[in-house]
Amino acid sequence: MSEPKTAVLHLNPSKNHEKIDGMEDNATIDFGSYMDARRALVDRALERYLPAEDTYPESLSRAMRYSVMSGGKRFRPILCIASFEACAGQGDAALPIACAIELIHTYSLIHDDLPCMDDDDLRRGRPTSHKVFGEAVAVLAGDALLSFAVEIVVREGTRLVPSERIVRIVGDLLKAAGPEGMVAGQVVDMASEGKPADAETVKFIHRHKTGALISSSARCGAIAAGAIESVIDRVSSYGARVGLAFQIVDDVLDAEGTFGNLKAASGLDEKKRKLTYPSVFGLEESKAVAARLAREAKDAIAPLGHAGLPLQLLADLVVNRSS
Amino acid sequence: MSEPKTAVLHLNPSKNHEKIDGMEDNATIDFGSYMDARRALVDRALERYLPAEDTYPESLSRAMRYSVMSGGKRFRPILCIASFEACAGQGDAALPIACAIELIHTYSLIHDDLPCMDDDDLRRGRPTSHKVFGEAVAVLAGDALLSFAVEIVVREGTRLVPSERIVRIVGDLLKAAGPEGMVAGQVVDMASEGKPADAETVKFIHRHKTGALISSSARCGAIAAGAIESVIDRVSSYGARVGLAFQIVDDVLDAEGTFGNLKAASGLDEKKRKLTYPSVFGLEESKAVAARLAREAKDAIAPLGHAGLPLQLLADLVVNRSS
Repeated sequence: MSEPKTAVLHLNPSKNHEKIDGMEDNATIDFGSYMDARRALVDRALERYLPAEDTYPESLSRAMRYSVMSGGKRFRPILCIASFEACAGQGDAALPIACAIELIHTYSLIHDDLPCMDDDDLRRGRPTSHKVFGEAVAVLAGDALLSFAVEIVVREGTRLVPSERIVRIVGDLLKAAGPEGMVAGQVVDMASEGKPADAETVKFIHRHKTGALISSSARCGAIAAGAIESVIDRVSSYGARVGLAFQIVDDVLDAEGTFGNLKAASGLDEKKRKLTYPSVFGLEESKAVAARLAREAKDAIAPLGHAGLPLQLLADLVVNRSS
Repeated sequence: MSEPKTAVLHLNPSKNHEKIDGMEDNATIDFGSYMDARRALVDRALERYLPAEDTYPESLSRAMRYSVMSGGKRFRPILCIASFEACAGQGDAALPIACAIELIHTYSLIHDDLPCMDDDDLRRGRPTSHKVFGEAVAVLAGDALLSFAVEIVVREGTRLVPSERIVRIVGDLLKAAGPEGMVAGQVVDMASEGKPADAETVKFIHRHKTGALISSSARCGAIAAGAIESVIDRVSSYGARVGLAFQIVDDVLDAEGTFGNLKAASGLDEKKRKLTYPSVFGLEESKAVAARLAREAKDAIAPLGHAGLPLQLLADLVVNRSS
């Protein structure tokens, strides 16, 4: 996702300047600029929302900022905003929700990296939170970000979005984050390390650990925009497929980059002995599934017409990215 | 708090069967029965809300239940319900909110007990979560309970309480739990271990680590009941004082039970080298402050009249309990 313009041009050059109703003044879309503009919006809002570095206790404020402002691609928040815009949402009303999603995502990364979990020293090329701030502050920075995410939706979102929608959004996001979503995925992911490849288990992990929050990101954009239920259902269906495809492609990129095809097909991620999609289904089948999911995702939102074009391009980007 | 009837009788026998408007059919209050009935309500609701033990992944469901259903006194949820009732709230509308508060409290205990935090092996006489389920599942069970708390308020609460109030309650609770509340208190608590006694720091820790959620518990009961702002302010003021008194009394009981007066007055909790109220202000002054806070708390809600009697008795109980 580091070169979205090139990737999209390569894939589908005719769509790079597609007409899109009511989206931009000149009624065309440059997808690279589209992504850059929304990523900048999200970055600026996060910068504004987060406690200043010198807010007491400083170690907490610094740890929160360190992990959130670490050059993330902001895929989930952009997905939320694109979904909001596709459903005719106006203005910046989705921005606090989009930022909350990134805060929830960041909290999960900090906790996943802990010594008692995946024990990772590096994240996005920088030392992980517990390496910089110690384990206790890392746990607490994650805890703080999850609570703060909800606080932001309520504090900033309620001025922009009716309370009924805010309640539904908060419930949707936290269900996606909790014991029926992301946390369940991480528990099973941890428990399956070193175990034999198993199709049902890897599907459960991917749907819960990554898929649930990505799906909720798309759905909450539609809810914030006040979309009718049938549209929310379509966006939700789109999000579930994009979310699963996202993680499968992660696995594929990891397998191809780190181990090459033969080793990756041997059953288990060699470093962590993690269960991955290619380890169960093989690389070619994994790629085919991801491509099929992206097609199904795009089909689901086809009725949105040109307004859904950024979502269509995001689905393409998910399966065709190189990082 | 294990013998509320006796404690209250000892304290204020004339109030043990006080008339209380609209509270019970016979228009009197037996505080022991009052507490027992509401504790049972909370316990049954938690039992109903929590995922069944065999919900996949079982380790997570069992870990969530293990820590929540461990014989807690349910002080915070009862405070929320008492505040709701004092503000003329009707029926069980506060119950999901009360349960969510207990889930948030339990999440904080699980994380506080972790090896990288206070490294406690026992909690309420039983092995701590990480001793039973391992560190990874303990971190994740805590994470799950925080998300699940919000889910419960939204899923169960929205049927009973208007969305505007639910939004405000969720925001209030998560602010109390997050980087401006409980988490900040825990960060400073950890950072101050082994440091010299310091009045401002111990006040900050107590107000944030314990006080914020207790204060929010009282306030959210009033918000759920639809109280007017001036009453919410009074209940909030009550809650802040009761919350601070609660932690001061915890420190006093700990000091008297574990070390005796002389050691406790020496400056630091000897086992954990934690900053405590008696270590800074001495035992007698700590007791005097707690008693003053309880009086101020009761004064704040005096205008609620007889409807506020359970809140008055709860304030007495906090400072006069023996466990």
